[in-house]
Parts: sequence; structure tokens; C-alpha cells
Amino acid sequence: MSRRLLFNLFQMNCPSHMTHGTWRHPASRSYQYNDIAYWTDLAKLCERGMFDAMFFADVAGSYGSWKGSEGFYVENAIQIPISDPVALVSALGSVTENIGLVVTGSVLQYHPFTWARMASTIDHHTRGRFGWNIVTSFLPGAARNVGHEGLLSHDERYAWAQEFLDVGFKLWEGSWEDGAVVRDVERGFYTDPNKVHKINHEGARYKVSGPHLVEPSPQRTPVLFQAGTSDQGRDFAARQAEGIFTMSQSPEHAATVVADLKKRAVGYGRDPERLHFIQGLALVVGSTEEEAKALEREIDEYANVEAEAAMMSGAVGLDLSKVDLDAPLTDLLQNLPGLRGTVQRLIDSAPAGSVATVADLARHNGKQWRVVGTPEQIADTLEKWRDAGITGVNLISLVMPKTYEDFVEHMTPELQRRGLMQREYAPGTLREKLFPGSGPRLTAPHPAVNYRSRFASATRP
Amino acid sequence: MSRRLLFNLFQMNCPSHMTHGTWRHPASRSYQYNDIAYWTDLAKLCERGMFDAMFFADVAGSYGSWKGSEGFYVENAIQIPISDPVALVSALGSVTENIGLVVTGSVLQYHPFTWARMASTIDHHTRGRFGWNIVTSFLPGAARNVGHEGLLSHDERYAWAQEFLDVGFKLWEGSWEDGAVVRDVERGFYTDPNKVHKINHEGARYKVSGPHLVEPSPQRTPVLFQAGTSDQGRDFAARQAEGIFTMSQSPEHAATVVADLKKRAVGYGRDPERLHFIQGLALVVGSTEEEAKALEREIDEYANVEAEAAMMSGAVGLDLSKVDLDAPLTDLLQNLPGLRGTVQRLIDSAPAGSVATVADLARHNGKQWRVVGTPEQIADTLEKWRDAGITGVNLISLVMPKTYEDFVEHMTPELQRRGLMQREYAPGTLREKLFPGSGPRLTAPHPAVNYRSRFASATRP
Repeated sequence: MSRRLLFNLFQMNCPSHMTHGTWRHPASRSYQYNDIAYWTDLAKLCERGMFDAMFFADVAGSYGSWKGSEGFYVENAIQIPISDPVALVSALGSVTENIGLVVTGSVLQYHPFTWARMASTIDHHTRGRFGWNIVTSFLPGAARNVGHEGLLSHDERYAWAQEFLDVGFKLWEGSWEDGAVVRDVERGFYTDPNKVHKINHEGARYKVSGPHLVEPSPQRTPVLFQAGTSDQGRDFAARQAEGIFTMSQSPEHAATVVADLKKRAVGYGRDPERLHFIQGLALVVGSTEEEAKALEREIDEYANVEAEAAMMSGAVGLDLSKVDLDAPLTDLLQNLPGLRGTVQRLIDSAPAGSVATVADLARHNGKQWRVVGTPEQIADTLEKWRDAGITGVNLISLVMPKTYEDFVEHMTPELQRRGLMQREYAPGTLREKLFPGSGPRLTAPHPAVNYRSRFASATRP
Repeated sequence: MSRRLLFNLFQMNCPSHMTHGTWRHPASRSYQYNDIAYWTDLAKLCERGMFDAMFFADVAGSYGSWKGSEGFYVENAIQIPISDPVALVSALGSVTENIGLVVTGSVLQYHPFTWARMASTIDHHTRGRFGWNIVTSFLPGAARNVGHEGLLSHDERYAWAQEFLDVGFKLWEGSWEDGAVVRDVERGFYTDPNKVHKINHEGARYKVSGPHLVEPSPQRTPVLFQAGTSDQGRDFAARQAEGIFTMSQSPEHAATVVADLKKRAVGYGRDPERLHFIQGLALVVGSTEEEAKALEREIDEYANVEAEAAMMSGAVGLDLSKVDLDAPLTDLLQNLPGLRGTVQRLIDSAPAGSVATVADLARHNGKQWRVVGTPEQIADTLEKWRDAGITGVNLISLVMPKTYEDFVEHMTPELQRRGLMQREYAPGTLREKLFPGSGPRLTAPHPAVNYRSRFASATRP
């Protein structure tokens, strides 16, 4: 079977996204991230290389504390400075034709009325190429930037996200009927007011009258992405996401995650084939295996082990700066039994015996999603991920923008030869490109669809 | 004296901004407003025609009620549908080089932390061409979209706007010192954490920890515009705006407004020459006077008097749908003495005896900012506005995009010949372009500057 994979650029609007330290690599131009030409050049490269989308992650606050202050993160540019991704994808929309533009937007940062309006506008401007990665912000620093004392409880964040999403669905799907905009020049009749509805949302957190201010965009609701890993997060995703982003340690691990998510989706009455499972991977490609390995060694010379440990701290919610990086890992595991599952999976994904100390673990943490080799070897590995149920790859960069230049030069031809990558863009919106045979809009039983005629005769403006 | 004027496109991201009804004109392409090519073409036209900026107004809710419902506004596309202007200027930033991009952002719609981040990002992406028109949303419908029962009091809105602005100033001016970003490859030192500060803002409405997530953009604080007309609004503008937008009925009226604003600015210790006064005007230009008048008659055939009355209702806060449009104006004035000042100024600005009924008033309301004639005649009138103290013009469109095409063809050469319009763009940021001889950033005694060293040693991240 030669089902193709999606390939996405995976970035943040910042100088150091996931591979910290390589901003020092001589080829790195990541410091140009505030120059829009850096991104428009990259967008054109990605379209030439037949990428499906540019996927922008985001954080809305500083990462946390390392040795008692946030200084270490600042010093090493660990996701700070970080510019806004929505302004960026808007700018990229006007210089691209086909590539999807997916942006991470946290329910903490926006009012859903404003967010829905912005999303509809970008969807119009890009002729339906907009996607939204729904997050609730896991960093306490993000919460403190918008009025909270710290992180809200997991339950509270998901309830909040669900209400935010429901407001969006009401505005995108329910407020304007198809055919509302008439533009009858003779009668002087632009929009039929009987087809434009207030939503009169009243929930625990929001009160939104409506109507939506933007007429229906090509996709109405943007293509929805999510990355929840908790039980609740997986349910949230299985119920309503169209693309689920995973960072599994191996194809085997991915297979269990995918199976679980598909089962949950079926439980919500959804067709599990209408779901993408997108794995984050960092490819190091060379014309020969030796060349690839040499490139990897060169990259690793710039890797910052302490930065990797600090990143792990933010991600697992544990301050590794209080731990001796050279101490044996067994000590860490003994003191923190709660972490054992995560850490054990990490150890298992490393070459046997290579992870003995906390520093080894941090080093491996930064490398766990690497695939190193010739285009053929990497494509072989990607087939394993595909056969495990993964349907797309978010390409993590090692050196910017070299990683993507190398990909387009070496990987695109090999992947296309194997039918693993598209040779041309399908027509239509991002949703139609990602799900061949579908229309531009969500279909039942997606919960958004329920709002479509909800406001039909109830509350005329 | 041949001091030049600024000329700005003045639009909303919608099919009918100020001249309602002309979307039916055969030349109108305003229905293409959701097609980004419509705007990128227009942006390139404006740069070719040496416009200083594209100024986007906005409303964040439906206009109000006419004959008991909002239907009339929807039917006539009176500022609804209306897409988001921030996504639009972001998209225009990547296809332009010199023109300023000014967007209206309401303190109701955004959290100041998110807004400040977005503004800094656009300022980076445009190399310092971003401006912000600060508004508090005067429409109750806008307030009802973001959780309020209706419009807040005037005092409350200005207090809110001031705190919002102060959070912005702290993030833009105080959080990152110049020279914070070092990018020392040898030492692996990207940013000096001793030069990046939390702001720890705690006010009546907001609590924002910081630091700002975006490194200092070319202008830091975007160029600030405001349009307050009340006593409080004028003080707010005189204290901190750099461009003030006026809709005066005549050069004489403008002169009194400008004098008042300059006096207030001096009261705040500011140089009144570092303030622009930008008047809204709609130009109808023809090669001959006859041609111009014929074009005006043609435009007026499409004018929608009821729409003008409805717009006036929203603007003056009075439901004119309850009034007989053919009734004599004297009746209206007798019943609503509070309106007399506004309405009398409007009547005075019309040809003597031409405004007898409410319908006449509405018709004249839509035409009060018109200047009709040959390029020479219009330039003569613009000189009068300039001599009254006006330093720039926001060009209201009559038919989109014909108004701007006509301007570039007929007005740009004549205005340049007289030294009334720039012949080339000055180098640097929007601030430097608008205020020759100034630097890219705000200077004392602007209140934003006070935050510059406020956080220097207090709260290291």
C-alpha cells in the first residue's frame, strides 16, 4: 500500500524552537526570524518542495525557572524572544498559493469572538488554507501574562477550551447561513438579514451576542488540530480534532496511540479515516550514510545539553536544575516515581546502554525524534511510521533553514518516487487537500455541524 | 509656505465603509474585499501614488437598531460583513515596502499582552511601518460580543483605554533594554537576561507579569493615532497620540479643533509640531469641473438616503428611524435640543437653504466631506485645509477602488507639483516618515518614555 504522508514545516516564530544551541551553527539564519523575507522565502521553498502545510507552534509566556530564575531561558533564546504567529501566517498567506497555514492559538490569549473573526478573515484571504492548533497553554508564565496567578487545573483548562471552541463553532457554522450574501444590485439588497443570526451564547466564561462579523469563509471552521496526551486531552481531540499531533518515541508507541485515538473517535461516531496523525520528526539527510552521520556530529557539536535539560524541565514540569546532571538516572527515577513512565519510554527509545546519567537523558531527549541517513534509509523509516498508522510528519528543524533546504533537495524526490509525498497540490481548501474526496467544510457527526441550523429562526438580528 | 500634507487610504475591511449604496455602482469591486488580491493590488497602487499610509477603521459589532431590528444594516451591508483588519495589514506588510499600515484596535477586543505582542511582530515584519488607531468601541453591539451588557460609561472606557495603553508602553518600552539581544556565537549567549524585565503590572483591569515576548521592534511603540472628540477624548489624544483624526465640517471648524488640541498638547509639555491632524475628505475629481460634477451626480444616483440616516443614527446615538424623514428639520431640533450643536454645524456646512428635511440632513451628512472639481480646484481647497492647521487627509472612498485610481491618476501629479504631496518616500520607519528629523522611537515628554528604565533593576526574570 502506498498511502502518502503529509509533510509540514514545524516552527515557531522565534530563533530557537526545538534544537537549542544550533542557532550558533555557521549555516543558521534563525536570527533573521523577525525579517519577513526570511519566512516568505521559506514559504516559497516549502511550496516548491510540496509541503502540505506550515505548522506554527507557540508559547505565550516564558518557560519557567532554571536555577531559580528565568534567565537561563532568555540567555539561550529558548523559545524567547518569540514573535506572534498569527501576524506571521497572515503575512505568508498573501505570498503563497497552495500551502496550508496552521497556527497555534491559545484560549488564554484571545477572546473567542475576536479569534473567530481573525480566523475567518485569514481563511478568506488564503482561500481556505487556514488551520488552528487548539491549545490551552501549559506554561504558568503564559497564564501570568493574562491575569491569572498561575496555571489553571487541567479540568478547568479543558472546560474553558471546550466553551471557547463552542463559541467558535456557533459563529463559524451557525451565525450565517449559506446564501445569506445575495448582492442584488437591482434591489439594493446585499445580505439577507433572515439568514444572519445572533448566537446569544451564555456560558461559564463567555457571553457573546453575535452575529459573527465575517461572512462564511471557504472552510467556515478552520481545519482543527490538537495535541492532547492526557486521557481528557485525547478525548477532546478524538471528539473534534481533524489532525492530531504526536511526539511518540517509536512507531510501536505511535501505533498504540493511534489505535487508542481511533477507538475514541469511533466512540464519538466519527470515521477514523477522517483523522490525521502527525508525528514530529527531525531528519538528518546526506547523500551517503557517512555524510548524514558527519552532519549529525556537526550539529551535535552545537547542541546545548543544559538547554535540553531545561526544556525537559518545562515539558515534564520538574526542575532538573536541582538535580546533578552527571548523577545516575536511577537516582532520579527513585526519587520521582511519577515520572517513571515518560522517562522509561525515553530510555527505551535510545540505543541500549547509552542513557546512564541525567545529562545523557537530556541529550537523548533532544535527539529522540531524529532519523539519520540517506534519502532511501530515511524513507524506509518513514514507511515504518506510516505502517504504524501515522499519516503525516511535522518536520523539526535542526539548523534553520538548512533542514528544509536539505529536505526539498534530497527527500522530496525520493518520497515522491515512492508515492510517500504528493507530486502536486490537490485543488480546493486545506480540508479538501488533507482529506481527498471531502468537501471544504466539516460534516456530521462533527459536533460543530450541530450549530448549523440552531439559530435559524430563533434570534434574528 | 508649501508644507506638504499626508495622504492616506481610509478604509474598512468590508464592502461598504462610508458611502453606502455605491457598492451597486457598475465600477465598484468592493464585493471582492475578502480576496486578498483586491487589497494587495490596492496597496501597490497606493505606494505607486505615494500615499503615506493605509488607515483601516473598524467596528467590532453590528451598528445598532433601525426600525426595531439590525436587519436594515445587514441588508445594506452597512459595515457588516466586516472582516478583521489586523490579519489584513499583516498580509499587506509582506507585499509593500514603504507605505504605513495603520490599524484600528479596540481595547474591548484584545488582551493588552496579546495586542502588544501582535503589534511588535507586525512592526518587525514591516520594518517599522505599523500604526495603531486606539479606540474604545462606541457601539453597544461590540460590547455585547465580548461579555458586556452594553456600552460602558465614557469615563470607564477612557480609564480602560489608559490602562491598556500603559500595559503596552511597559511592554514595548520598558521590558527589553536596547542591546539586550547580543547573539554572541562564541559564548553561546543570545540575550542578556539582565536587560529583559518583567513588568509586573497590576491595575484595575489587568494583571500582566511579562516579560514582553518580542524583542524591541524598530519603533517599539507603534505610531499612535486617536480620534476622540469629547473633552476627555481630546485630552487623551493630546497627551499621547501622534496623529489625530478629525471629521471637521469646514477648514474654519478644523482650525478651532486643531488650536484646542495643540494647546492641550502644550499643556502636557509636548511639541505641538510633533502632532498630525488628519482630516477625512472624499474627493470627486474630473479633468474638467463638468466632468467632476457629472461623476458626482452619477455617484449620488447610487446613494442610499435611508442608509445615511441609519449611519447618522449610529453615530449620533439617536434612532432616526422613529422620525419621518420628510419632516422639517425644525421639528427634530425642537424635540432634541441636545443635538442642536452637531446638527447646526452640519446645516451650516451645506449650501444655504439646501437642508430643510431630515432626509436632506442625512443626504448632506453623507456628502459633507466632499470636495468636487478639477485637480487644481481640489488642490486649492486642500491648501485651505492645510492653512487651517490640517496636516494630513484620510481619503474616503466613493466607489471602490475607483476613488483611489482616480486620485493616483489625477491628484498625485498636481499635488506633487505644488509640493502638497511627497514625491518619494523618506527612509526609515513610519514615525520617521511622518515626522522628518525624528528618530524611529518616541521621545520625551511622551508618557511612554517614562517606562523605559522603570524596570531596569527591579524585577529580573
